[in-house]
Amino acid sequence: MKLCRYGKDGAEKPGIIDAQGKLHDLSKVIASIDADTLTPRTLARISTIKPETLPVVIGNPRMGVPLTGISKYIAIGLNYSDHAAEAGMAVPTEPIIFMKAISCLCGPNENTIKPAHSTKLDWECELAIVIGTKAQNVSEEDALNHVAGYCVANDVSERGFQLQSSQWDKGKGCDTFGPLGPWLVTTDEVPDPQNLNMWLDVNGKRMQNGNTQTMIFGVRKIISYCSQYMTLLPGDVICTGTPPGVGMGVKPNPLYLNIGDVVTLGIEGLGQQQQTIVAAS
Amino acid sequence: MKLCRYGKDGAEKPGIIDAQGKLHDLSKVIASIDADTLTPRTLARISTIKPETLPVVIGNPRMGVPLTGISKYIAIGLNYSDHAAEAGMAVPTEPIIFMKAISCLCGPNENTIKPAHSTKLDWECELAIVIGTKAQNVSEEDALNHVAGYCVANDVSERGFQLQSSQWDKGKGCDTFGPLGPWLVTTDEVPDPQNLNMWLDVNGKRMQNGNTQTMIFGVRKIISYCSQYMTLLPGDVICTGTPPGVGMGVKPNPLYLNIGDVVTLGIEGLGQQQQTIVAAS
Repeated sequence: MKLCRYGKDGAEKPGIIDAQGKLHDLSKVIASIDADTLTPRTLARISTIKPETLPVVIGNPRMGVPLTGISKYIAIGLNYSDHAAEAGMAVPTEPIIFMKAISCLCGPNENTIKPAHSTKLDWECELAIVIGTKAQNVSEEDALNHVAGYCVANDVSERGFQLQSSQWDKGKGCDTFGPLGPWLVTTDEVPDPQNLNMWLDVNGKRMQNGNTQTMIFGVRKIISYCSQYMTLLPGDVICTGTPPGVGMGVKPNPLYLNIGDVVTLGIEGLGQQQQTIVAAS
Repeated sequence: MKLCRYGKDGAEKPGIIDAQGKLHDLSKVIASIDADTLTPRTLARISTIKPETLPVVIGNPRMGVPLTGISKYIAIGLNYSDHAAEAGMAVPTEPIIFMKAISCLCGPNENTIKPAHSTKLDWECELAIVIGTKAQNVSEEDALNHVAGYCVANDVSERGFQLQSSQWDKGKGCDTFGPLGPWLVTTDEVPDPQNLNMWLDVNGKRMQNGNTQTMIFGVRKIISYCSQYMTLLPGDVICTGTPPGVGMGVKPNPLYLNIGDVVTLGIEGLGQQQQTIVAAS
């Protein structure tokens, strides 16, 4: 299933996408898409409903973050070896965990606000995992049983802020640095999360062209590993690192985003996003 | 005012402490202590009520996290120069921002779970700021107007996990690594957050003995700085770094926490906490 939240910011309704790509109103079935909705039981109940029998949503409404009540947004750094190389950093021997501020989350097509003093605004197309059931010290074998679904994420990064101190979170958590969606695609439609093509364009030029099969640490390992250190709760999101092709790695000179630039990205089966870079007001 | 949440985990009621230190039930006045309660308007309304006129809570109930709905838990690293020295790290020239997982938050007297494979469990007594009103690009002059109050925090840290990669969050966000409270003490009782004695004992032996006046970056600066990078929302918590005396800095050999150890800590006017170290189940 492709679940989403659509409508005005702060007043989103739950929706579901049918096989033809049409959006239907799911609000008669569930009140929201959140930790309570992502239980296997509720997802199973929704899956018995034919989207075509629900009211079609007319027009082209804004898409919000596809789930609400996210308690933590974990990110894995340098998880594609050729991205580590372009970033000039060592290939990690264990997953590198950092965190994105919840306040950075936004809909998939919101403008990206270039912060005041930003000179190195960059992109990162990533597969995001959405946790469905509490995961504490889970094995790699069991890990996928705790997943509700997957989303496209742009792990927007300000490299100057990120690398100013030893800790990256400052450059990863600015407002609008967390576009997520358009949909939360449940696991029934993603039988193998390690074989998804992913891409990102800047102003129509292809910059990233990768596949989740070249992750250093796969989805199973990431979930198992994170769950050894902190309990993963329903609705938690983990973005899994980016393939090569970020602005920081462009040769001979890095290429960073400026006001008016348009970033478009997508992952096979998970939909696509588009952001326009705007000035901080 | 000293506000708190008391009672069983997940079923806490709001409370208020009177001038004699007695706990009174605040649940007839407000439903909870959260982002909605922390507005200047609601705090002003609560302040007109004499705690003595509210029902006394009998017994000695468990204290929970003193507020709920915390959307981010920011932490500032190496914010006391002599702590940076004992950690063998450079004194920072700008605040170092990292994040603690929301799932690490717990009541002030909960047991601290020593994670499996933990060998370097450590303590950090810290002043925590609780944001009361949205703060975005605020000046240092205006910063304190966005504060609802202050709490005692123990920024529990697993140094092996923290320093295994470049990013500290993994060793800072384990379950129970975020004792907060016992109270949220509103700003009327903390006229100067830069002159508060703070202390921490391990098994009755004084290990940390500091004062917030030796912070490198004070509360005003921290709020202003963080708000340049991410919008601070009501209920957000920022812990502000620890004075020297952590286990990692003990000479000639570091001293880490083991099962059964008891950590007691407090800050002048903000109350005290006590945690016992227990094994992961």
